Amino acid sequence: MAVYTEVSDDELAAFLSGYDLGHVMSCKGIAEGVENTNYLLHMERGHFILTLYEKRVEEGDLPFFLGLMEHLSERGVSCPLPVHNARGAALGRLGGRPAALVTFLEGMSVRRPEARHCAMVGEALARLHSAGADFGLSRPNALSVEGWSELLGNAQASADKVAPGLAIALAGELAYLQKNWPTDLPAGVIHADLFPDNVFFLGGALSGLIDFYFACNDFFAYDLAICLNAWCFEQDSSFNVTKGMALLDAYARARPLSQAEVDALPILARGSALRFLLTRLVDWLDARDGALVKKKDPVEYLKKLRFHQQASSARDYGYMR
Amino acid sequence: MAVYTEVSDDELAAFLSGYDLGHVMSCKGIAEGVENTNYLLHMERGHFILTLYEKRVEEGDLPFFLGLMEHLSERGVSCPLPVHNARGAALGRLGGRPAALVTFLEGMSVRRPEARHCAMVGEALARLHSAGADFGLSRPNALSVEGWSELLGNAQASADKVAPGLAIALAGELAYLQKNWPTDLPAGVIHADLFPDNVFFLGGALSGLIDFYFACNDFFAYDLAICLNAWCFEQDSSFNVTKGMALLDAYARARPLSQAEVDALPILARGSALRFLLTRLVDWLDARDGALVKKKDPVEYLKKLRFHQQASSARDYGYMR
Repeated sequence: MAVYTEVSDDELAAFLSGYDLGHVMSCKGIAEGVENTNYLLHMERGHFILTLYEKRVEEGDLPFFLGLMEHLSERGVSCPLPVHNARGAALGRLGGRPAALVTFLEGMSVRRPEARHCAMVGEALARLHSAGADFGLSRPNALSVEGWSELLGNAQASADKVAPGLAIALAGELAYLQKNWPTDLPAGVIHADLFPDNVFFLGGALSGLIDFYFACNDFFAYDLAICLNAWCFEQDSSFNVTKGMALLDAYARARPLSQAEVDALPILARGSALRFLLTRLVDWLDARDGALVKKKDPVEYLKKLRFHQQASSARDYGYMR
Repeated sequence: MAVYTEVSDDELAAFLSGYDLGHVMSCKGIAEGVENTNYLLHMERGHFILTLYEKRVEEGDLPFFLGLMEHLSERGVSCPLPVHNARGAALGRLGGRPAALVTFLEGMSVRRPEARHCAMVGEALARLHSAGADFGLSRPNALSVEGWSELLGNAQASADKVAPGLAIALAGELAYLQKNWPTDLPAGVIHADLFPDNVFFLGGALSGLIDFYFACNDFFAYDLAICLNAWCFEQDSSFNVTKGMALLDAYARARPLSQAEVDALPILARGSALRFLLTRLVDWLDARDGALVKKKDPVEYLKKLRFHQQASSARDYGYMR
């Protein structure tokens, strides 16, 4: 949550004059999204989110992200829809940054997900995977197994501060994953960051998915493993198998899992736990001054990783089909 | 701008169930207000700001602040109107903090005010002073001349980091102000923090005043002197006499200034420059970790103070009546 880039009223007015949305009636910097600066805009024609893309987002990836949101929206996935300006472009520049306007989604994220939320997320994730199948662009996942060596290098200093010997333990885990990582699972566009912060609910139903800025091409079941990590552990880092069952069952009803995907769940869960553990370790010592980034505790993911290291099959996550 | 206190969805729902505003449809932490945590709420019955009062606001002062906004609103001053819950209370508790809901004001603050904005602010300030005349509560100004000794004590360490010898220079200034501070000027409720951040404009007109959490009883002309500091200097800290004229003239048209008030403007401007210089010095080394507080440069107010030390009469600020 951060406002990294402040925008003057003149710059904002000039930027918005390129859109057919009427006058701006209010503009509030919102504490949402760790990667970018977001403003909630009230225009005469409605409410929108204005995003200024900060350094961590590659400008060359923006057509993929914005195109994907548009593609998914058109196929009935409730997500922010990029607004095109009068020249037809979804991407502009503001405050020296690439910038885009997207529609505002109503809804609230849940702090403490229940099994019913996990089920709704499982179904939405499966629908996202299906809806993305015919998306024309692709983007490799820089944060999958090939990218973890470099991340581990960057995380080493933090790792030993978090727990002595952790860097070596992580190197061992990485070697195991590199050796055993699956190579031939159903793949396509995945969200790759579908944490509770990025899912809105309204009136007891899932109202939308946001923050597609880690989306990429990878195994569908890896996305599901990320959700197991993000949704199905309790505050004390114990795994809630009822939530796991709800998530996996709802996913599989909407998009059946192959046996290979089911068999791969434990290792995919290990990999995704390592991925978030590594990025949290890197971020731990690297938050920019002057902006509010609530640092996330790496230890949470160390505990999750240890759970996955003990898991022997998808049944340990509640998959009963 | 900060979100100091995070609120869980359950806590929020419980708090909002006490209001007759329908269901909550979205809730965004907004980067606004350096003192408190603010959320922009979309309820079925409209948009509201939810404020959680942080430590810097005395809980005992809240009835004054909330009552004042209500009083001013009723008298046609466009400002946030506190919403009463079903039990009739404007003040509740949320996330372990005192909390209140107020109506959302449309409009945008201006980053670089022009003379026309200064005129609108001058008029609005005069109307605020008149409308507050029959408000039943009072609150002494802890940040006026009696409070500056203590502030100076707290600011001394920072002062010498900002400029060697500054602490001693400030002590000299304070002694001058203590000796010469006026004692008998028209007084009443003042805003005391009417900076550009706290004034919204929409469609070329002033649409509202916000952030009454420094409001107190003091000389009306002191409030005007604060606005001279806040609105009429350029980015390079030079005083723009056209803006000063616009501010003072518009104020005096709506609430005529006495000769004593006019004569006191230079010393009141010195005092208000010292007040903001001192609080900025104190804040300079004291921003809380984990929350975005954009620290404001104390040197800006040192330059302004030096300008006021050279001023000999209200004419130096553009007052020509």
